Amino acid sequence: MALYVQKYGGTSVGSVERIEAVAEKIQGFKRQGHDIVVVVSAMSGETNRLIGLAKEIQPHTPNPREMDVLVSTGEQVTIALLCMALEKRGVPARSYTGGQVKILTDSSHMKARIEDIEVSSMQADLAEGRVIVVAGFQGVDAGGNITTLGRGGSDTTGVALAAALKADECQIYTDVDGVYTTDPRVVEGAQRLNVITFEEMLEMASLGSKVLQIRAVEFAGKYKVPLRVLHSFQDGPGTLITIEDESTVEKPIISGIAFNRDEAKLTVIGVPDIPGVASKILGPVSRANIEVDVIVQNVAADNTTDFTFTVHRNDYEEARTVLNQVAEELGARDVVGDNKIAKVSIVGVGMRSHAGVASKMFDALAEENINIQMISTSEIKVSVVIAEKYLELAVRALHTAFELDVNNSVSEK
Amino acid sequence: MALYVQKYGGTSVGSVERIEAVAEKIQGFKRQGHDIVVVVSAMSGETNRLIGLAKEIQPHTPNPREMDVLVSTGEQVTIALLCMALEKRGVPARSYTGGQVKILTDSSHMKARIEDIEVSSMQADLAEGRVIVVAGFQGVDAGGNITTLGRGGSDTTGVALAAALKADECQIYTDVDGVYTTDPRVVEGAQRLNVITFEEMLEMASLGSKVLQIRAVEFAGKYKVPLRVLHSFQDGPGTLITIEDESTVEKPIISGIAFNRDEAKLTVIGVPDIPGVASKILGPVSRANIEVDVIVQNVAADNTTDFTFTVHRNDYEEARTVLNQVAEELGARDVVGDNKIAKVSIVGVGMRSHAGVASKMFDALAEENINIQMISTSEIKVSVVIAEKYLELAVRALHTAFELDVNNSVSEK
Repeated sequence: MALYVQKYGGTSVGSVERIEAVAEKIQGFKRQGHDIVVVVSAMSGETNRLIGLAKEIQPHTPNPREMDVLVSTGEQVTIALLCMALEKRGVPARSYTGGQVKILTDSSHMKARIEDIEVSSMQADLAEGRVIVVAGFQGVDAGGNITTLGRGGSDTTGVALAAALKADECQIYTDVDGVYTTDPRVVEGAQRLNVITFEEMLEMASLGSKVLQIRAVEFAGKYKVPLRVLHSFQDGPGTLITIEDESTVEKPIISGIAFNRDEAKLTVIGVPDIPGVASKILGPVSRANIEVDVIVQNVAADNTTDFTFTVHRNDYEEARTVLNQVAEELGARDVVGDNKIAKVSIVGVGMRSHAGVASKMFDALAEENINIQMISTSEIKVSVVIAEKYLELAVRALHTAFELDVNNSVSEK
Repeated sequence: MALYVQKYGGTSVGSVERIEAVAEKIQGFKRQGHDIVVVVSAMSGETNRLIGLAKEIQPHTPNPREMDVLVSTGEQVTIALLCMALEKRGVPARSYTGGQVKILTDSSHMKARIEDIEVSSMQADLAEGRVIVVAGFQGVDAGGNITTLGRGGSDTTGVALAAALKADECQIYTDVDGVYTTDPRVVEGAQRLNVITFEEMLEMASLGSKVLQIRAVEFAGKYKVPLRVLHSFQDGPGTLITIEDESTVEKPIISGIAFNRDEAKLTVIGVPDIPGVASKILGPVSRANIEVDVIVQNVAADNTTDFTFTVHRNDYEEARTVLNQVAEELGARDVVGDNKIAKVSIVGVGMRSHAGVASKMFDALAEENINIQMISTSEIKVSVVIAEKYLELAVRALHTAFELDVNNSVSEK
C-alpha cells in the first residue's frame, strides 16, 4: 500500500475512450490497495484550440491574466470527465481545479511558480478512500486569480503534489515506456534504462530526449521525489529517476547518448583578444531573443581569437545578421556559419570517477572518420558538434563503444 | 451615468466575431460614462458539446458535481475572450468566474440557488473604471465546490448581480428586440411592448413566449430590479419589465396573447365523485415525472364526474398508460384523449379591474366558430384549450379583438 501521484498527459486523455482506459488503470491500482492522486493535462488539441481562439482576438500579446482563465478550462474538462469515468466503475473520486486544491503560485501569469500547496482537503479525501483528480498546469495566486505554470506544467504539478503529500512515487504516464540509452529510431539496440539519476536526466532532457519537462525533473531532484516514467497503456516498470545511490558499486560509466539535430553554428573569426569581447558578441544575440547553446572560444593567436557558438537552426539567419553588425563594430575579420550540424552527447554520472571517457568517445568517432568540429564538457556529459550527415553513424558508434547495446548492469536491476 | 448589468446569451457570443461585436457595444456604453457589469453565457453549442462528452461516459446520470465542473468551463472561456476583446479596444476589463465573485449557492448541483453575492471585489474594480465580466450560470457552494444554476441560469446571474450591486437596470441582450403582444410569426401586426409587468411577463413566459427565464423574472420581481430585454445587435429601447405603476391610469386591459401548441389533453370519464379522487388520478401521473398543466373538473352528475387535464404532447402516450391503470382501480368508465390541441391565453394586469374580459374572449372565438374545449383562469390570465388547427386563427382574432394590432397606450410610452 503506497501513495502514488500519477500524471497522465494530453495524449493519454486525448479522447473519451482513452479517459475510460485511464480510469480502468486507476481502478486496478485502487484494487491493489494504493492511494492515488491523479494529475491530468487538457485533452490533446484542446489547449491549442483555446489559444487559437485567443489569437483570433489578440494575435500578438493576449492579456496574460485572461489567457490563464481561458486555457485552464482545458484541464478542468479532463478532471470532470475522468471522475465520471471513475464513478461509473464504482471508484469514488473527486476533482480539484488548481484553485480548489489550492496550489498557491506567484502572480506571473502563463509562467507562474508554485509557492505552496494546501494538502488538508486532499488528505481528508484520501482518508475516505477517494481518488483525487487534480487539474495539472494551473494554480491560483494570493489574490484568487487563476494562473498557469506554462506549457508542460502538468509534470511540475505532479511532482509538487508528490512532494507536498510525501508520496512514495510520482509516476509520469506518457507515450513512451521509459527513458532510453538513446533514440530507438536511430539505434535499434537502444535499451530502456531501469534507473537514471536526476542529473543525468536533466542532461538527457536538455539535450533532446523530450520525455519529461526539465522543470519537473529539477523540482523532483530538489525535493527528492522519486519520479518514474511509464507508458500509459503498456505494462512495464518504466524508468525510475532518482537520487544517486552511493551504495551502487557497479555503475555504468555512460547512461545514454543524447543528440540534437536542430542546431547551427556561427563563428566570428579574428576577434581582437581583449577582455569583454564575449559579452560584446553574445549581448546583441541575446537581446534579439536568440538562445545560445554550446559556446567555444579557442586560445588566442596573433592577438586575435575565433569565437564559436551554436543556436537553434531556426535562428540561424537572424543570428548571422546580428553577428555581421557586431563583427564590423569589433573589427573582426569575418563571420562564417554552418546550419548542417548536429550535437551528440554522452551522459553519465559514472564518468566523474572514470578517466578516459572523453578520449574513448573521440576514438570511437575517429574510427568512423567523423570529424569533431566543437567540444564542450560538463561534470557528467561530453558533447561534440559534428556534420549533420554523420549523426546516426556517430550515435550508433558511441552506443556500441560504451556497451549500451546489451543490457547493462543498471537496466538489469 | 448609470450602473448597468448586461447579460449576453450564447448566440450573442457564439463566435469570435460576435464577441468582438459585443466588446464594441460595451465600449460604446463606457464612452457614455456608464459602469458596466457583463454576464455571459457559453458560446452557443459549447454547453451541448460538453454535455455530449459527459454522456459518452455516463449516458444516464452523470455525476452532478463533476457535471458542474465540466459545463462551467463553457462560460469561463467566454469571459476570458470577451475581456481580451475589451482590452484590445483599450477598455480595462477583468473576468470573474462564479467562484471568484463569489456567487455563493446551495449545494444542489446542476440546479443550485443563489444564497449570497460578495460585491466588494467587483465594487473596487468598478471604482477603478474596469468593466467586469462575470461567467453566468455558475457559482460556488460553502465547501468551495463549483455549482451551476441550471439551463438558462445566466439570466438569473444577471438579475442577482443587479440586485446585489443595486444596478439601475438589468439588461438582457438576446436575439429578439423585446417582448411582443404575441408571436410575430403568427400575427403580422404583433407589437413590441415598451413596458410589461413582472406578473404579466411570468404568465407570458410560462405560456410559451420563451424570451426570458421564468426564474430570472421571479427574482427580478422579488428584488424589484428593473429588467429590460433588448436585441444584441440592433438598436432599440427593447421592453422594460417592471413593477406595476399605480399611477398609470391608462392601462391596457390585455398586454399580450400567449399560446402553446405542444399540449395534449386527457380525460378520465365517469370517475366516482368522492373526496380525494383528484390526487388518486394525478398522484401516479406525477410519480411518472409527467408535468400537468391545465386541470379542469366538472361538477358531478349521477355521482360521477369527468376529470380532464393537459400534459406536454411528448408525455401523452405514457400518461394514457398510467391513466388506464388508474381508471381501472377507481372504477372509472373510460379514458379518452386528444393530442391535437393547443392552448391560447390572454394576459394582462388590466383585466383585474375589468369585467367582461373573458366573455369578450369567448365571443371573439365564437365569431370564428372555434369551439372551446377547456377554460382555466387566473387573476391576470384566461386560457382556453382548442383544437390545434384553429390556433393561428384564434390568436389573430384575439389580437384584433383586444386592439393589440395598433400601438396601444403602453407601447406608445
